Amino acid sequence: MQAPLNPDSSPDTVAARLRIVLVGTQHPGNIGSAARALKTMGLHRLVLVAPQKFPHADAEAMAAGADDVLASAARFDTLAEAVADCRFVLGCTARSRRVQLRELRPRDAAAAAHAQALDGGEVALVFGRERTGLENSELQLCHAAVHIPANPDYSSLNLAAAVQVLSYELRLALLGETAAPSAVAPVSTDAVPHAQLEGFFAQLADTLEAIDFHKGRAPDSAMRKLRRLFVRTGLDEKEVRLLRGILADAQRMAQLAGERRER
Amino acid sequence: MQAPLNPDSSPDTVAARLRIVLVGTQHPGNIGSAARALKTMGLHRLVLVAPQKFPHADAEAMAAGADDVLASAARFDTLAEAVADCRFVLGCTARSRRVQLRELRPRDAAAAAHAQALDGGEVALVFGRERTGLENSELQLCHAAVHIPANPDYSSLNLAAAVQVLSYELRLALLGETAAPSAVAPVSTDAVPHAQLEGFFAQLADTLEAIDFHKGRAPDSAMRKLRRLFVRTGLDEKEVRLLRGILADAQRMAQLAGERRER
Repeated sequence: MQAPLNPDSSPDTVAARLRIVLVGTQHPGNIGSAARALKTMGLHRLVLVAPQKFPHADAEAMAAGADDVLASAARFDTLAEAVADCRFVLGCTARSRRVQLRELRPRDAAAAAHAQALDGGEVALVFGRERTGLENSELQLCHAAVHIPANPDYSSLNLAAAVQVLSYELRLALLGETAAPSAVAPVSTDAVPHAQLEGFFAQLADTLEAIDFHKGRAPDSAMRKLRRLFVRTGLDEKEVRLLRGILADAQRMAQLAGERRER
Repeated sequence: MQAPLNPDSSPDTVAARLRIVLVGTQHPGNIGSAARALKTMGLHRLVLVAPQKFPHADAEAMAAGADDVLASAARFDTLAEAVADCRFVLGCTARSRRVQLRELRPRDAAAAAHAQALDGGEVALVFGRERTGLENSELQLCHAAVHIPANPDYSSLNLAAAVQVLSYELRLALLGETAAPSAVAPVSTDAVPHAQLEGFFAQLADTLEAIDFHKGRAPDSAMRKLRRLFVRTGLDEKEVRLLRGILADAQRMAQLAGERRER
């Protein structure tokens, strides 16, 4: 699926093969919000099928800085025309009860869409009307349905929210982040090497001695716990210096207390 | 980390430990949209920190059927109070330039949040002001930052869109659909709640004062670095007790040195 040497497979080129299609949108404000949502995710092809009111001031207002997306939006009378050149068409549904379509989760849908686009195919993600969604005849133009697994008791994502979620998944796919579980580095990459940590631990042990922390108990147990704690933290160089500065002052204070005691 | 036989680990019980915190929201309409966004994803705990206008008709209007979420929203004056009982606090940032926090992608952040909540911990996802985000002092209360990988040329997701994306990832985690455990145990599951950490930080600040660590410099910078270090570590209760014992001895020593100096 990956073709890193193909110049045609850069994220931008691939994104240019992905279109977001809004069918029969009732509120022009939603067209603007959808434009903004897809642009935040690095997409830019918006296609409108028979919008009820467009162009419209509400669309401009909600698009914020995505007016270029609105201005370049293609417009068709029917979904069939809007997806005529597409190799893969995904219909977003609240629940595809009416048509027996394969139903994909957003992540799998994005992976499938991305694979098609990477391979040079044109891909459409289709969103229906605010209240009634896509009609039967429109769903029949889709290769699969995509369903956002919403709260069954309150599944009313608005149009722009649904576009946001699907565009987000497309973006992760474009960035190549879907599969690999971005192995989260458990400690900072700036963590000092162990040898430097040992110097800190030695001074820490001396300080505990100086401030009479152990009070007769064996020092091993406390030092073991402190070692575990600071090793886990992954201290960087500045932090080691800061902590050793604090220890130095505590040692100085203990010495002062001791000297005065001796007099 | 999984305990499927534990009745306490049903998605609803776990969801009840996840709170969405909005800090200093300027437009009440955004509070309503955010309420709707989180409810569509099966969450219901909204917490407001110093909202500029609330309650407000715009919030009701945008919440659509999520008025129950609005009505039950808790309200605090400061973020510290809002997350006092939390074991894991995630700050949503456009980019965490200012504070050296570990930055997680939404998927990993949701997995980590879910793991904590599954283990019985209270978890907060924190969203800042529309224009200015979270302040430095607020980010310092966070164990990690979460960043939605938006289009660098147009990264202005609105507040509700960001809440939608993060809530969606939390829902996938609740449904057990995130690709398994990129074993993101970011902090120990035994980590103490924030309020307990604050007691430790207060004593640490007092100790630095007592041992004359600052020597005329402003104490803020050192404390900020130390906070970051210990929040990242995820201290458990025994560790906090151990560290506070050491501080108490250092304070005692400083007092002794001072007393003897005065004679």
